[in-house]
Amino acid sequence: MKIVTLGEIMLRLTPRGHARFVQAEGFSAFYGGAEANVAVALANWGEDAAFVSKVPAHAIGQAAVNALRRWGVDTRYILRGGERLGIYFSERGADRRSDYVVYDRANSAFAASLPEEYDWNAVFEGASLFHFTGITPALGERAAAVTEAACKAAKERGVAISCDVNYRSKLWGKEQACEVLGRLLRYADICIANENQARSLFGLSEGKEAEELSSRFGCGTVALTYRRTQDALHNRIWGELYTGGKKAVSRTYDMEMIDRIGGGDAFAAGVLYAHLHGFAPQKAVEFAEAASCLKHSIEGDACIASLEEVTELAEAKKKFGIGR
Amino acid sequence: MKIVTLGEIMLRLTPRGHARFVQAEGFSAFYGGAEANVAVALANWGEDAAFVSKVPAHAIGQAAVNALRRWGVDTRYILRGGERLGIYFSERGADRRSDYVVYDRANSAFAASLPEEYDWNAVFEGASLFHFTGITPALGERAAAVTEAACKAAKERGVAISCDVNYRSKLWGKEQACEVLGRLLRYADICIANENQARSLFGLSEGKEAEELSSRFGCGTVALTYRRTQDALHNRIWGELYTGGKKAVSRTYDMEMIDRIGGGDAFAAGVLYAHLHGFAPQKAVEFAEAASCLKHSIEGDACIASLEEVTELAEAKKKFGIGR
Amino acid sequence: MKIVTLGEIMLRLTPRGHARFVQAEGFSAFYGGAEANVAVALANWGEDAAFVSKVPAHAIGQAAVNALRRWGVDTRYILRGGERLGIYFSERGADRRSDYVVYDRANSAFAASLPEEYDWNAVFEGASLFHFTGITPALGERAAAVTEAACKAAKERGVAISCDVNYRSKLWGKEQACEVLGRLLRYADICIANENQARSLFGLSEGKEAEELSSRFGCGTVALTYRRTQDALHNRIWGELYTGGKKAVSRTYDMEMIDRIGGGDAFAAGVLYAHLHGFAPQKAVEFAEAASCLKHSIEGDACIASLEEVTELAEAKKKFGIGR
Amino acid sequence: MKIVTLGEIMLRLTPRGHARFVQAEGFSAFYGGAEANVAVALANWGEDAAFVSKVPAHAIGQAAVNALRRWGVDTRYILRGGERLGIYFSERGADRRSDYVVYDRANSAFAASLPEEYDWNAVFEGASLFHFTGITPALGERAAAVTEAACKAAKERGVAISCDVNYRSKLWGKEQACEVLGRLLRYADICIANENQARSLFGLSEGKEAEELSSRFGCGTVALTYRRTQDALHNRIWGELYTGGKKAVSRTYDMEMIDRIGGGDAFAAGVLYAHLHGFAPQKAVEFAEAASCLKHSIEGDACIASLEEVTELAEAKKKFGIGR
Amino acid sequence: MKIVTLGEIMLRLTPRGHARFVQAEGFSAFYGGAEANVAVALANWGEDAAFVSKVPAHAIGQAAVNALRRWGVDTRYILRGGERLGIYFSERGADRRSDYVVYDRANSAFAASLPEEYDWNAVFEGASLFHFTGITPALGERAAAVTEAACKAAKERGVAISCDVNYRSKLWGKEQACEVLGRLLRYADICIANENQARSLFGLSEGKEAEELSSRFGCGTVALTYRRTQDALHNRIWGELYTGGKKAVSRTYDMEMIDRIGGGDAFAAGVLYAHLHGFAPQKAVEFAEAASCLKHSIEGDACIASLEEVTELAEAKKKFGIGR
Amino acid sequence: MKIVTLGEIMLRLTPRGHARFVQAEGFSAFYGGAEANVAVALANWGEDAAFVSKVPAHAIGQAAVNALRRWGVDTRYILRGGERLGIYFSERGADRRSDYVVYDRANSAFAASLPEEYDWNAVFEGASLFHFTGITPALGERAAAVTEAACKAAKERGVAISCDVNYRSKLWGKEQACEVLGRLLRYADICIANENQARSLFGLSEGKEAEELSSRFGCGTVALTYRRTQDALHNRIWGELYTGGKKAVSRTYDMEMIDRIGGGDAFAAGVLYAHLHGFAPQKAVEFAEAASCLKHSIEGDACIASLEEVTELAEAKKKFGIGR
Repeated sequence: MKIVTLGEIMLRLTPRGHARFVQAEGFSAFYGGAEANVAVALANWGEDAAFVSKVPAHAIGQAAVNALRRWGVDTRYILRGGERLGIYFSERGADRRSDYVVYDRANSAFAASLPEEYDWNAVFEGASLFHFTGITPALGERAAAVTEAACKAAKERGVAISCDVNYRSKLWGKEQACEVLGRLLRYADICIANENQARSLFGLSEGKEAEELSSRFGCGTVALTYRRTQDALHNRIWGELYTGGKKAVSRTYDMEMIDRIGGGDAFAAGVLYAHLHGFAPQKAVEFAEAASCLKHSIEGDACIASLEEVTELAEAKKKFGIGR
Repeated sequence: MKIVTLGEIMLRLTPRGHARFVQAEGFSAFYGGAEANVAVALANWGEDAAFVSKVPAHAIGQAAVNALRRWGVDTRYILRGGERLGIYFSERGADRRSDYVVYDRANSAFAASLPEEYDWNAVFEGASLFHFTGITPALGERAAAVTEAACKAAKERGVAISCDVNYRSKLWGKEQACEVLGRLLRYADICIANENQARSLFGLSEGKEAEELSSRFGCGTVALTYRRTQDALHNRIWGELYTGGKKAVSRTYDMEMIDRIGGGDAFAAGVLYAHLHGFAPQKAVEFAEAASCLKHSIEGDACIASLEEVTELAEAKKKFGIGR
Repeated sequence: MKIVTLGEIMLRLTPRGHARFVQAEGFSAFYGGAEANVAVALANWGEDAAFVSKVPAHAIGQAAVNALRRWGVDTRYILRGGERLGIYFSERGADRRSDYVVYDRANSAFAASLPEEYDWNAVFEGASLFHFTGITPALGERAAAVTEAACKAAKERGVAISCDVNYRSKLWGKEQACEVLGRLLRYADICIANENQARSLFGLSEGKEAEELSSRFGCGTVALTYRRTQDALHNRIWGELYTGGKKAVSRTYDMEMIDRIGGGDAFAAGVLYAHLHGFAPQKAVEFAEAASCLKHSIEGDACIASLEEVTELAEAKKKFGIGR
Repeated sequence: MKIVTLGEIMLRLTPRGHARFVQAEGFSAFYGGAEANVAVALANWGEDAAFVSKVPAHAIGQAAVNALRRWGVDTRYILRGGERLGIYFSERGADRRSDYVVYDRANSAFAASLPEEYDWNAVFEGASLFHFTGITPALGERAAAVTEAACKAAKERGVAISCDVNYRSKLWGKEQACEVLGRLLRYADICIANENQARSLFGLSEGKEAEELSSRFGCGTVALTYRRTQDALHNRIWGELYTGGKKAVSRTYDMEMIDRIGGGDAFAAGVLYAHLHGFAPQKAVEFAEAASCLKHSIEGDACIASLEEVTELAEAKKKFGIGR
Repeated sequence: MKIVTLGEIMLRLTPRGHARFVQAEGFSAFYGGAEANVAVALANWGEDAAFVSKVPAHAIGQAAVNALRRWGVDTRYILRGGERLGIYFSERGADRRSDYVVYDRANSAFAASLPEEYDWNAVFEGASLFHFTGITPALGERAAAVTEAACKAAKERGVAISCDVNYRSKLWGKEQACEVLGRLLRYADICIANENQARSLFGLSEGKEAEELSSRFGCGTVALTYRRTQDALHNRIWGELYTGGKKAVSRTYDMEMIDRIGGGDAFAAGVLYAHLHGFAPQKAVEFAEAASCLKHSIEGDACIASLEEVTELAEAKKKFGIGR
Repeated sequence: MKIVTLGEIMLRLTPRGHARFVQAEGFSAFYGGAEANVAVALANWGEDAAFVSKVPAHAIGQAAVNALRRWGVDTRYILRGGERLGIYFSERGADRRSDYVVYDRANSAFAASLPEEYDWNAVFEGASLFHFTGITPALGERAAAVTEAACKAAKERGVAISCDVNYRSKLWGKEQACEVLGRLLRYADICIANENQARSLFGLSEGKEAEELSSRFGCGTVALTYRRTQDALHNRIWGELYTGGKKAVSRTYDMEMIDRIGGGDAFAAGVLYAHLHGFAPQKAVEFAEAASCLKHSIEGDACIASLEEVTELAEAKKKFGIGR
């Protein structure tokens, strides 16, 4: 089934090993972004996942496209032009030293693109699902307009819509986010969110986040991620899926992490995969959380664990991996 | 004392750091194999350890020989010729993501070699001990014939024989393994095995594995390894030595591992070193298990910890390292 | 336009920098093969290039597929299964020390595949051109049968056929090659060859190779590559295109090379690109030779120079690059 | 003697070895810029060289400062704040494949800084010389205003002024450059330029560039660089110094280059060093050209050859290095 | 405020990742030493920290100077000349495999330097504090004489003095250390020590070390470090500050370490920073211990955590990092 | 045939690629020395080559031994003990930037060893040839005594002796060298030298160096190397062999070099190999010079080209490689 994701793809620069930015003599290069990561995971699991964006017409822009194609993502709707590819620097923490992220994404080709540049007919032809995150409208008025245009185009063509709230306080204020995301979430059939962010952004009641998101925005399915931080390399995570008025909660994973980035995107990809394949709620949330857990053991932004690996962990077939 | 080991040496290709096969832009190269690893450990501890095998007559074959010579292994009995060097790809796991091994060892120069190619007189001249593992006869009829020829040649010359059962279900079925290994074990004075494998392969009683192996195959000494897996990088191990009708059990090590491969071979090398030097059972099993534990903290297939390091850990002289 | 190529894709292992095999502590990994390299170049230039093959159903096989997708190659017709991916080791020479190549490609998944495993209808649907090389039938009877089946299927569907003779004496004898390739070349509309090999394999007259190949096998277009070796890193190359009874000869390039592998494949890709776009002969041969020249300045097996870069060099727009 | 340079410092990202952007799995990181490179060379030769700029108040900005301090540059006048550090991507060419540079420097902290942010009294206290290049005013109106403010401040304090024309067509048009640089050059005592650029930008007569620059802008000293390109890694260079109405021309160097970037900045540093130490014209131009030549044999943007190395080459004491 | 430190700077050679010396194909290079590390930390936090030493007049000596300048250390008082730069090899341990250090520091330029080579007037002009460690006098008679000369010069100029006892049994015997350090400590206002070493070297009572050090040597401030070793990568640490007759104890950190070297130097730097800024005892010891804790998460010898990072951890503002 | 070489083995530290010492973040590690390099080349060609020396009893010393064993050198006569392993730093030049070598070899374990520590009976048992170079006696009185003791022991046992003059002005003065080497050369049957050094050290006539060395010291065979330097990476070399009163001169090689170090040692190894196998003079000098030429194309100190490669080049079987 064809899934469309829309957003920005960035160059990520990470010093090798445990080197700090101020020590680094070089960087490993990854290309990713919240929506691109979802597309990579789904394409890697065999789905027909397309990523819609705009990158500059030079070799660095092409490298971003190639990085997606490598995993099977359909990149034909990516426009070329504009000024630059967004960049973010990411330094891996250890023990009490936290991860350190420096964003340098302003004025990207995608953020400067306009709704009318995209051929929505082609983009949504044959699509079953459209996915975006709250990062995209946060990139500026143009990107918000592109997001809304995509939502409308999807809705008109009967394509189901998924939104991962993904509130980033560095990109916009709570009030503006609340207003814009509130408007966009009304298009969404599936709402994915981090419990803390969702509660604080929308003023939800603790323990009732999923129900309230569902009723406030009319999303049939709400998926929530929970994360507790021990230190830079150790986190505890679990997930929750609310659908058909019932709630399913996944196992809890205490993780030793290789790369913290993209854990939520892997969860979102798992939720969408489960949705597309009609998984029952408990199976669905276990699949999504297993995808998220495995992502943290992999370098780079996207969950490139195979379908077999995710399924095996989700179904607890391995001796280790559960409740250790 | 001269120790002879026989088997295949392979090129191991491992992506750097935590990269997955599907991400890897390159591989670190190691050369190893169950029997070669035993030879390296013994030579590194100062023994006169020879490795008998066959490698192709090109630079990759030569590189395998050089890798052994580096640690002091006597490589003069390694034949040149045949088609290829066996290869295995090994991806390091993390957290719930398991290690991933892809074998590409069929049709190796060694597996295609014949008993009559080897000069057993030269090989066993002055030897005190001959060691092989259950992997060698599993490589095919020719390799099984070479193994049996070596056992006979050793026996005829009064050389003591050690066999590490090392059952690999990817290489052969249980029935065939049981028959062939059963036949070969009757040559053995020392039998080394993983408790689970041994129990399941030979139908032994839990808790009585060593005694039953000893009585069934007439091996005076039986050494067993125990391993419990927490996750990809954390294992608990201990060992058991049954000799002279008595059992000695080593300390237990809860390990954070750098490289899981070769832990059993390090244990075997430790058992043989202890045997050659007449260690008392408790000292012997502590030495072997310390070698195994240290191996897991070292990159590559073989235990290249020094004799001093193994002894120090075995004798619990260090503050840390015991029962933490 | 859709172009179909058929053949084996291998893992190439190359020590870093100038290290020799016997020194190497690791290898850079590339995935390539004569036909895959043509597909990569064409896809990178924006063509719809499909590669047909078979790779094993494990992560190393998947990595080969991913490596092709990265450049835009359509990999949907690649079958999964079989024993192994072919491997070749390649050591970079310098000065009087030659490049050193060790092949380990026997028993690959592709070489063991059968004609009936492929869905030729799907493969050739909408195709304009089918390209293969003399390496493919040299891989064994099965691969030869697959090649011939592909030629027949292409012919029946009116798809133009291109064959790069690519005679490899390590794979088969001259007599057999001459017979099999002679039969296959009769399907071909375009014949590409190295002048020396062609002359010696088919007994052609010096200076008349193209004409004789054209008349003997009925290929309307014949393209020849010429190479003179100064040392491991310096070669002189030029090309010749014979079509419509006329011959065009390219500029000569004296090159300082980064990676010698794949120069002929880049030339072939250039010939095909020129053919598909109806370039006049002189423009065509300059384009193909420029692609070949640029390939030698790039690490890896395929010419990933952009269309603009190849065109710029072919059209001599740059100050340097011609007749220096 | 204290020398002040003013300009932007950028992060340079270069794929390792000969990898192309579209292949690169990582980048080496250098920090440089035309004026910063001059400061590094002078500080490395023992001068008291200060660099004036503005970098963002995060670790990437700090890394740029640290990179300068490493070579002894006085960084106390570098302001902190603003949005981002300018970046440029640089791919090393080979043979006919040219170097490939992608600039991503818009909206840098320095380009957005205002003249009044700088404490010109402190900056120029005790200074003997102020150096800037034509890149700085090309970064936008603010940067042009900062440059002019610096020139005025230097002039008022009797500090000699040096300007390297450094015209970059990617940054601004010829007309605007001509007007702005013309105005700024009137402050300059020393004018440095590439002969081609100077001729075309200011409409100078061939062979009379230095004389005309000197008389038009009133610069007592004019230094010109000449460069002929054979291919991506081979250039021929020489320099010319016009001072006191007389012209001195350096030896010519045919170079095999490691890193083409910063050759002109090394020449400028050499001119300034010679000026500060009162070298006679021929000695001066040989020193500057030797610094430029050696820079091309060094990775990174700045000439970090030692004073002894530059002097030795300039004075032709080495057997090789001259007119080979 | 200007702080002066005196001592040896060495080249540290560490195999990459977890490689052992006997496997290493190369080394990462760091430059450090107990006193240089203190200077780097203080300079990185914005203090005016000078390092006094002597290095050979060649590029390896210069590289050591550059490494200090990178972090802002004032290197103008470092003499050039002498035979060699001290070297130490450091292999990173894992699990039960300990760190392995090989010193090769005899006959260094600094150890052979004489008191009269240094310009103490210039060195201590404007200085607030002088810091040295017990390693410096242990390097030999000359180095001991230099240390005592520096103490006298500081004392005469009213500069406060700090001494980190840092007893190294590999460098000298207990008796000699006790005598020389006892004499030097009488100059000290601040005494820093590891509790175990201090107790055993000076025969102090357990639990009363700080008080007894203070009264015996007349140091108003005594800071002690405590360390318990779980294994090669896990330590527990805490600190104690005795000043004005009162004792403050820091939080305890159970650490997973990246690099064990320099933890005590980071503590010392923290003690000095707190002293210079008049921190209350509890704030001071938390600051020093946070600096020490963060150092263990950073590669290299010195604590290059920023002032903000240290303060944030010291003040327990982060959710994780305290009493986990 | 057993060949004995005697000398120092050092750790060589070389920055990666073209990095300079002052830029290097790490070093590649090689282990070598003039005599060890000869042993490696001969062992790699299948000879029974032993290296006699002394290394410290720690892991860095062991790594040096392992590096020799890797190539098949017999290391059983290497003593353990003493202070340190000699080190030298080597920076690769480019274009006009020369190679830069920093020696740090004083006080090595070998230089401090005494003649009576070695078991000359064991060392020379069964030996055909003893080889040393002029570097060894230059290391100090003890090393000179060891060298002379070895010469005497060899002479007494009828072992042929070879000496490579290898005069190093950094190690000793001309007068002392002339006296000591003159005395030692009287033991030698084979004298190898660089023509320039030999002429200047012993005051020989140009064009008559070989004859005069032969008659003055009574060496039946004299081999001379000639080298002309174009730049850091380009040299021209040829060799001369004077034996039985006749002179044979090799082809001349204009080389593009990967690693300049050890070219003379490879020549020496070639001379000895030719001597041991009774090559006619012209064949001998071509073999030795081919070994030297190939060494320059290989990273590291020793010629690890295979016997086939050297022979192929020496016999001019390859199209390129001669007189280009």
